[in-house]
Amino acid sequence: MLRLYAMPGSGNSYKVQLLAALLDLELEQTDMSALDGSTRTDSYLAKNSIGKLPLLQLEDGRYLPESGAILHYLSDGTSYLPDDSYQRSLCLSWMFFEQYSHEPAIAVSRSINLYPERAVDITPEYKQSLLDKGNLALGVLEDQLSKTDYLVGETPTIADVALYAYTHDCHNGGFDLANYPHVLAWVNRMSAAPKYIPMPSGN
Amino acid sequence: MLRLYAMPGSGNSYKVQLLAALLDLELEQTDMSALDGSTRTDSYLAKNSIGKLPLLQLEDGRYLPESGAILHYLSDGTSYLPDDSYQRSLCLSWMFFEQYSHEPAIAVSRSINLYPERAVDITPEYKQSLLDKGNLALGVLEDQLSKTDYLVGETPTIADVALYAYTHDCHNGGFDLANYPHVLAWVNRMSAAPKYIPMPSGN
Repeated sequence: MLRLYAMPGSGNSYKVQLLAALLDLELEQTDMSALDGSTRTDSYLAKNSIGKLPLLQLEDGRYLPESGAILHYLSDGTSYLPDDSYQRSLCLSWMFFEQYSHEPAIAVSRSINLYPERAVDITPEYKQSLLDKGNLALGVLEDQLSKTDYLVGETPTIADVALYAYTHDCHNGGFDLANYPHVLAWVNRMSAAPKYIPMPSGN
Repeated sequence: MLRLYAMPGSGNSYKVQLLAALLDLELEQTDMSALDGSTRTDSYLAKNSIGKLPLLQLEDGRYLPESGAILHYLSDGTSYLPDDSYQRSLCLSWMFFEQYSHEPAIAVSRSINLYPERAVDITPEYKQSLLDKGNLALGVLEDQLSKTDYLVGETPTIADVALYAYTHDCHNGGFDLANYPHVLAWVNRMSAAPKYIPMPSGN
C-alpha cells in the first residue's frame, strides 16, 4: 500500500491527504514533525535527501518527495490531471505559482500568527511584506476564478487541491477572503465536494 | 511560432531558452524586464496575471506562465520528459525543490551580489541565512549526483535544465562548487551538450 509521511497541520501534507480522499485512494500514514528534528535524521534523509514533508512511499518501496510531485503522480490517469498537454502544463503553472508566490507568503503568515513563539525575530515590516505578497497572490486567484469555476476550467484539478490548502484557512494568516468573493465561492465549492476531508489539526 | 517573453540575465528565462536550444525549437523572443514596471502594466497582466517572466505564447495565442510549466509543455514527447509516470513526477519533484528551496536562496544571493544597489536593506544575518539555505540545497544535489549522472537517472531531463540555470553560476552568489565535486562534474556535462547555449547576459 502507498504510505504517506505527513505532518498534521501542514497544508503541504494536507494537499496529498485531500487528493487521496477525493480519489478514494488508500494511504497508510506515518505522522511526523518538521519541527522536532526527525526530518533531519540520517534515516529520514536516506529516504528523502530534501529533508521535508510530505513524502510518498510507493508500493515497491521507491520514494517521491514534494507535495506537487506527489499530487501529479497520484492523479495521473484521473480527471484531476487533464490529458491535454497544455491543460496539464497549466495545472503545473498554478502549482509552481503556489510554491513560489503564494505559500511563502500565506503559509508563513499563518505560521507566524499561530505559533508566535517560533517567530521572535520577525519585524512588523516583514509581516507587512508577507501580507502584501499574499494579497497579491489572492488577487491572481480572484482574477482567474472570476472567469472559470476552477483554476484550469470547469472541473477541479490538482491545481485546485494545491491552492486550496493554504487559501481556505488564510484568515489564520491575517487575510480576509471577503475581499476575494470568487475565491471564497471556490473555497466553498471545494469543501462541498463529495469525500472532502478537512485539514488535520496540528500541534 | 512560439513566442517567449523573457528577461535577459534571468535564470528562470534562461531555463526555457536552454531547453529550446537543446531541443532545436524555434522561439521568437520578446525581451522585457521585471524591474522597470513593464510586467505590472495592464496589457502584460492581461497576458499573465501572475505578472512575472518568462511567459510562453503558443501558436494559437494562448499563454503559459511559470518556467517549470513551460519546460514541461515544451518537453512533452521528448527524452527530456520521461514517459514513465514515476520518473516524470520525480522530474517535477526536483523542479518544485528548485523553486522552493534552491532558487530563493541561490538566485537571491546572486542578485544581492550582482546588484547591490537593489539590496540596501539586506542585513548580514539575512545574507548568511541565504548562504546556509543555498549550501543545504547544493548538498541535496551533490547527494543525488553522486549516485546518478543526471538528476533523474543517466540521461538529462527538464529537471537538469531547471536546476542547471542558477547552479552553474552560483559562484556569483558566493557559493563554491569546489565543495560539491559531483555537482561541478554535472555542470560540466550539461555545458558540453550539443546545442548548449550560455545564459544571455543581463543589465
